[in-house]
Amino acid sequence: MRTVIAVLTLLLASILVFAQNKPARSSYDAEAMAPPVKTYSPELMKTLGTLRDAALGDDYAYRQVAYLTDNIGPRPTGWSQTDAAVHYVAEQLRMLGLEVHLEEVHVPRWIRGAESAELVEYPGRAEGAVQRIVLTALGGNTPTPEGGITAPLVVVHNFDELKTLGRERVEGKIVLFDVPFDEKKAMAGFWGEAYGEAVDYRGRGAKEAAALGAIACLVRSVGGADHRLAHTGHNTPAGIPAGAVTGEDAALIARLAAQGKVRMHLVLQAHTQEDRVSFNVIGDLKGSEHPEQVVVVSGHLDSWDLGTGAIDDAAGVAVAMETAELVHRLGLHPRRTIRVIAWMDEENGGHGHDTYAKDYAAEFSNHVAAIESDLGSDHPLGFAVKAVPDALPWLAPAQEILRSFGANLIKPTEHSPGADISPLAGAGVPAFGVIEDGRTYFNYHHTAADTLDKVNPQSLRENAAAMAVMGYALADMEQVLPR
Amino acid sequence: MRTVIAVLTLLLASILVFAQNKPARSSYDAEAMAPPVKTYSPELMKTLGTLRDAALGDDYAYRQVAYLTDNIGPRPTGWSQTDAAVHYVAEQLRMLGLEVHLEEVHVPRWIRGAESAELVEYPGRAEGAVQRIVLTALGGNTPTPEGGITAPLVVVHNFDELKTLGRERVEGKIVLFDVPFDEKKAMAGFWGEAYGEAVDYRGRGAKEAAALGAIACLVRSVGGADHRLAHTGHNTPAGIPAGAVTGEDAALIARLAAQGKVRMHLVLQAHTQEDRVSFNVIGDLKGSEHPEQVVVVSGHLDSWDLGTGAIDDAAGVAVAMETAELVHRLGLHPRRTIRVIAWMDEENGGHGHDTYAKDYAAEFSNHVAAIESDLGSDHPLGFAVKAVPDALPWLAPAQEILRSFGANLIKPTEHSPGADISPLAGAGVPAFGVIEDGRTYFNYHHTAADTLDKVNPQSLRENAAAMAVMGYALADMEQVLPR
Repeated sequence: MRTVIAVLTLLLASILVFAQNKPARSSYDAEAMAPPVKTYSPELMKTLGTLRDAALGDDYAYRQVAYLTDNIGPRPTGWSQTDAAVHYVAEQLRMLGLEVHLEEVHVPRWIRGAESAELVEYPGRAEGAVQRIVLTALGGNTPTPEGGITAPLVVVHNFDELKTLGRERVEGKIVLFDVPFDEKKAMAGFWGEAYGEAVDYRGRGAKEAAALGAIACLVRSVGGADHRLAHTGHNTPAGIPAGAVTGEDAALIARLAAQGKVRMHLVLQAHTQEDRVSFNVIGDLKGSEHPEQVVVVSGHLDSWDLGTGAIDDAAGVAVAMETAELVHRLGLHPRRTIRVIAWMDEENGGHGHDTYAKDYAAEFSNHVAAIESDLGSDHPLGFAVKAVPDALPWLAPAQEILRSFGANLIKPTEHSPGADISPLAGAGVPAFGVIEDGRTYFNYHHTAADTLDKVNPQSLRENAAAMAVMGYALADMEQVLPR
Repeated sequence: MRTVIAVLTLLLASILVFAQNKPARSSYDAEAMAPPVKTYSPELMKTLGTLRDAALGDDYAYRQVAYLTDNIGPRPTGWSQTDAAVHYVAEQLRMLGLEVHLEEVHVPRWIRGAESAELVEYPGRAEGAVQRIVLTALGGNTPTPEGGITAPLVVVHNFDELKTLGRERVEGKIVLFDVPFDEKKAMAGFWGEAYGEAVDYRGRGAKEAAALGAIACLVRSVGGADHRLAHTGHNTPAGIPAGAVTGEDAALIARLAAQGKVRMHLVLQAHTQEDRVSFNVIGDLKGSEHPEQVVVVSGHLDSWDLGTGAIDDAAGVAVAMETAELVHRLGLHPRRTIRVIAWMDEENGGHGHDTYAKDYAAEFSNHVAAIESDLGSDHPLGFAVKAVPDALPWLAPAQEILRSFGANLIKPTEHSPGADISPLAGAGVPAFGVIEDGRTYFNYHHTAADTLDKVNPQSLRENAAAMAVMGYALADMEQVLPR
């Protein structure tokens, strides 16, 4: 999950407050709002219950996450193991009887290279002393020269402060944006706001700093936890090296800079090599009545390289795969086509969904809905939905099925509730994003600690159930959602 | 805090259970046990109250921790900034009017060097794939050859399993002891047991593995937290490289090894250079009546290099310094000498206290008590005390003073309650270890995340108050503790 959806997560933040106030009810109040709740056929309701119960008792998704993270590993765009992941997912979907198409996507090949930083001048520094700074390069940036750079640091806490300093005090320096991720806000349910406030600096910090002549830009890691963990991510290319220091290191630098002059030696060799060919994995489980009508269930297959991308977003891909696995195993034949998509390059430019938008533009009118899961794998609360108001009553029966495990929240949103489905959402396709409990998501997001053990098997089963029930309902309900 | 006190922390674990059952009472039940509680003079009681209140309202110790960690930084034995720390503490103590002596200690100079690991063969590995393993070298070990080693991994879960495998299946391999630190146990108050169970493998794992022909030894990091954080520490030299992988990496390797063959490329260049001269910093605030009688208040000045040694153990040194600062600032003149000691090399061989034991052996009979703080800086619950039963009634009045902020626990122990004061404890000197709330201590202990922000200023004030009250009481009570 990258910068693009910061705005969305901001929006999602309000959901939990609502959920906490009315835990036992859907956010769509059928009594207060017209039109009235729609119903599904008894057969469909029964099938949805069967799908839910099968998902809650199955570990197919977990096994997929385990293989993608343990046996394949990190999956940055353009890496060989990312290719391996593409072919693995394609093969798994073929085994479920899906028609699989590898859609060619040209992606940047990002190479991390050497990265290190140390303070070489600061108040009180002893001869020969080392204050090592823990950091990570950000995607999209420019490498330092081979031996690194050494320059004074200037610490700011927001864009206004940077502008007030002006070119005179920024030029030739390394700028640090010391903007903390607000863990208390996140833990209180406002994780989207916490993320949104801080990620803006990761996104355009380098650009703003470069505009005033800075020779490198560092941001405080966008994420919680207090374990000296650096959080990577994409940032807007600005022609200067850019990285993220840990919260501890940002605070250290800020304290020392408040005492006197601080200079840093900085090595960030990360760079982008020329584009490679990769793929969106697209698997169709053809509809029995309207094969041309498509419901997308999806997650993104690429990840950052520090961890193994378990919660971001092998989990999303795996629950989408499980929707197909359950339909296959239970011998179901929905009216419409269920299309599993494992998106490529959500993290480093969004080339996967951009390519899909071009290749499939003519078929968007037949895309009846699109679902993405890209907020981890903790307990699902329901869905953020971008759709016309008239569409919502058609979701109520599915909400009833999801209520038993607390995934019945429907939160209307004005923005796409997922980065990869944003072209579809923009074209008016009803778009669904699973809302997971995101309180601790940003403690691990884009770090070395995004590993299999962060996936709770029971919560993952719930996510698989939510995706399968909603995906199947949309594919088999009598009429398509109004749009 | 290192291996030596694993046994002690095991013992300390039971304290919290006691504390939780009887939060409002001292563990010394004066009514049930003879002899009866002793009393101090009204003047001494008043002074102790004044010391406590002054400590609870002061940030001297915090400023010391900040300087030692931010401005000086990591303090491994034999490093230049460790020398800077020695001279800084000496100068601070001189400014308080103490007679300062730098006691020469020969210490190993430990150099971390390059360290990295990756799995080069494992089930499902894609051509060119990387599974990077996050690890740290352990102190006391032998470096790998410059280019590292590549060998099969064998995973065991205890020493018995290793022995069952035998030389045939261990020789030429890298052994991983996958023994988790039990976080639930730690959070329930049994942190000492959790630590003790796991640290045994860090201590003698390499030796046991080498005995069966292993060419390197890895242990699972001894500590909690789930943030892919490697925990370093000392281990018994065994002539083979030794390191600690993170909990996540140990689990990954174990899962892959259960599926098939796993081989690792391992670089651990850490090595020990020839001894350098360093120092215990010893500062005497001379007693007004019995200057020859000494009460030691202490912490250890050296640290590991990954973090900046804030909780292990700049905090201990700082609260000992604050005892002197308070006595100086309040113009107090205790009967006996209060000796502040900032011990050198607690972490990497214990040469500081060994040297002290030699240099001061003749004066041990005049050491009336010794206190050390080396379990972090969270809320102090009281003291672990190694002393004869008759000594305990003399502590009751001090406990009364400490009761207001919950540091009134006295827990008799058979072992030295601190590594650096163990020679004194062994010689019969009443020995006191501050018992801090250690539930999260081992999440940060010996990691890169042991930094200033982990020190809660209010808890540190409480630690300073506990050390000052107990230290002053022992130095000014009418008679010395029986021994």
